[in-house]
Amino acid sequence: MAAAIDFYFDFSSPYGYLAATKVDALAARHGRTVAWRPMLLGVAFKTTGGQPLPMVPLKGDYSRHDFIRSARFHGIPYRQPTTFPISGVTPTRAFYWQQGSDPAKEVALAQALLRAYFTEDVNISSVDGVLAVAATLGIDADALTAGINDPAIKDRTRAEVEAAIARGVFGSPFMVVDGEPFWGMDRLDQMERWLATGGF
Amino acid sequence: MAAAIDFYFDFSSPYGYLAATKVDALAARHGRTVAWRPMLLGVAFKTTGGQPLPMVPLKGDYSRHDFIRSARFHGIPYRQPTTFPISGVTPTRAFYWQQGSDPAKEVALAQALLRAYFTEDVNISSVDGVLAVAATLGIDADALTAGINDPAIKDRTRAEVEAAIARGVFGSPFMVVDGEPFWGMDRLDQMERWLATGGF
Repeated sequence: MAAAIDFYFDFSSPYGYLAATKVDALAARHGRTVAWRPMLLGVAFKTTGGQPLPMVPLKGDYSRHDFIRSARFHGIPYRQPTTFPISGVTPTRAFYWQQGSDPAKEVALAQALLRAYFTEDVNISSVDGVLAVAATLGIDADALTAGINDPAIKDRTRAEVEAAIARGVFGSPFMVVDGEPFWGMDRLDQMERWLATGGF
Repeated sequence: MAAAIDFYFDFSSPYGYLAATKVDALAARHGRTVAWRPMLLGVAFKTTGGQPLPMVPLKGDYSRHDFIRSARFHGIPYRQPTTFPISGVTPTRAFYWQQGSDPAKEVALAQALLRAYFTEDVNISSVDGVLAVAATLGIDADALTAGINDPAIKDRTRAEVEAAIARGVFGSPFMVVDGEPFWGMDRLDQMERWLATGGF
């Protein structure tokens, strides 16, 4: 069986959200599954010297315009969050806890968190925000709260983020297909041809 | 008559080169012309705090790979230049001199310079490199050399670059259609739909 596509994203990344709405169906068209791997852009920025897009002069103004236009272009619901960007630490820990607890729900949780942040203005950087979203999936609030605060989950999150950066992941979304890296919502087209042809 | 599309690019930018091979035909499909406006990314970086892609940790390695893969994806000839990046000052001055001298040849000169740098490894940051390319278009070497060194052309170049940045141009390529900005080779698809529909 062909290897899963690694899908790296930050919960605060608009382009990560846009790609998240497409990546599973794209992979399925080519007989692939997707390994969802939330990471933390802020940690990657320590290596690349980058900073969040909205804070970069000129580029920030353009980006705020482009997030919304790109969502319209791709036909994806989008509402610019009031608080932006946010820390992805809490939802990322929630994801890795869910993975260890019930992996069948990990992708649904990630998708619900992204949708809540980018279409309903729920601030998912807070534990309360994450719990509210998780409740819609029937995830137990006490167990999830304990998971988010579990030192083992914190270590797991840190290890995942470090492994991503060690692999060269510096942006969101960032996909890896059989070792071939694709950065950005803009590279889903190249990734799809790569999957269809085995490389070009 | 509909306004021209402003096409900003840096002579050292691989994605600028890739877009330059497509932009005139794309515009023509929608009854538009293109105003070519070479600029200097290095000056924009003073505003944005950016730096050339190849010098950014992680992103640099990815970008060198992506330049070549993107050229293959779009079916555009590409050979990674030995000296990269380069200063675009000399070819940019040559362009604006040519514009004042014989505007019918300005686009042909820009295209020939980009093609020489990105497919034949000609270092177009030097006057000799620019003259060699210009000679293939029958442009007089003495007149062009004088133009590149003309203080009025230097002022013109500086003014064009400053006007671009004042307008919010921070990357290459960067297109503006009736006030709507599109950054990157990756936005030609959105620009084309914008031209076809008058906005979306």
